Amino acid sequence: MLGDLELEVRHDTEASEMRIIGIDPGLRRCGWGVIEVEGSRLSFVECGTIRPPTEGELAERLAVLHRELDAVLGRMRPLEAAVEETFVNKGPRSALTLGQARGVVLLTPAIRGLPVAEYAANLVKKSVVGTGHAAKDQIGLMVKTLLPGSKAGDADAADALAVAICHAHHRVAAARVKALA
Amino acid sequence: MLGDLELEVRHDTEASEMRIIGIDPGLRRCGWGVIEVEGSRLSFVECGTIRPPTEGELAERLAVLHRELDAVLGRMRPLEAAVEETFVNKGPRSALTLGQARGVVLLTPAIRGLPVAEYAANLVKKSVVGTGHAAKDQIGLMVKTLLPGSKAGDADAADALAVAICHAHHRVAAARVKALA
Repeated sequence: MLGDLELEVRHDTEASEMRIIGIDPGLRRCGWGVIEVEGSRLSFVECGTIRPPTEGELAERLAVLHRELDAVLGRMRPLEAAVEETFVNKGPRSALTLGQARGVVLLTPAIRGLPVAEYAANLVKKSVVGTGHAAKDQIGLMVKTLLPGSKAGDADAADALAVAICHAHHRVAAARVKALA
Repeated sequence: MLGDLELEVRHDTEASEMRIIGIDPGLRRCGWGVIEVEGSRLSFVECGTIRPPTEGELAERLAVLHRELDAVLGRMRPLEAAVEETFVNKGPRSALTLGQARGVVLLTPAIRGLPVAEYAANLVKKSVVGTGHAAKDQIGLMVKTLLPGSKAGDADAADALAVAICHAHHRVAAARVKALA
């Protein structure tokens, strides 16, 4: 059952505890969510949304995004990061803008030496809701179900927690493959 | 004459010496060029091209770009940075990729507290060649003329020097406007 997250996992292939940060990149709103993984159990730690200033020099806005995300990493001490690979369908100009924020979001944990995984938005939805075409509010509801006590105040933080959950599932699978090899 | 860069400049509106880095962003090849501005005279300092690994995790490739660019900033100590605002016409996916590199290139000097100006590619060409539709090799030739002793080994470094020259012209104009106000 997805609700209990009782995946068939060999506990010995897992580190005893793993803290993951999921990030939903954006220049105006960048969601982040931290969870803890112990064997097949996931638990909510904290989440939030970074809102860089919407005016001023682009470089300075990116610097605020970097500083605030780096402060979260320093406070939360995750061991791995996962970032949503957003599908872009709004033309090259908005893809460029999103790309700039994504570059900073991928770089910031990498500077701290964290491995940074990327997951397509469809895979994230599938991991959390069971289908690749879920509505925003469905994701929020499932995140609350999968992570009791989750306090995602907005869709960005909920999306970030969904990316973290997706990574938790997939790194377990990767560990199993490794164990079999 | 553009060749002598004898613009009508009031020298008293200028700091005695200003070091500028121009950057032509890219994930595979990122050109940089440092010039010095003294009144209306420009001189070549150094240039190069950063080539992050083309394989491996995207976050790690961006981290290499950041580290190498940051090392250049630490060694060259420019006071201002200028980045080319590339026109994207290759569809959203390549715009996203370029955006990621641009985000890192804008962020890296901003972290060090440098002001980062952006200039459209057409304006850069116009500043250096006199028209917004110059060919790559024309830019290289004009950069060599404007900066005697320039050792731009490739088009990326030459483009970066062109961005630095463009910024040198425009910050002078901005200083004049300020002085008049």
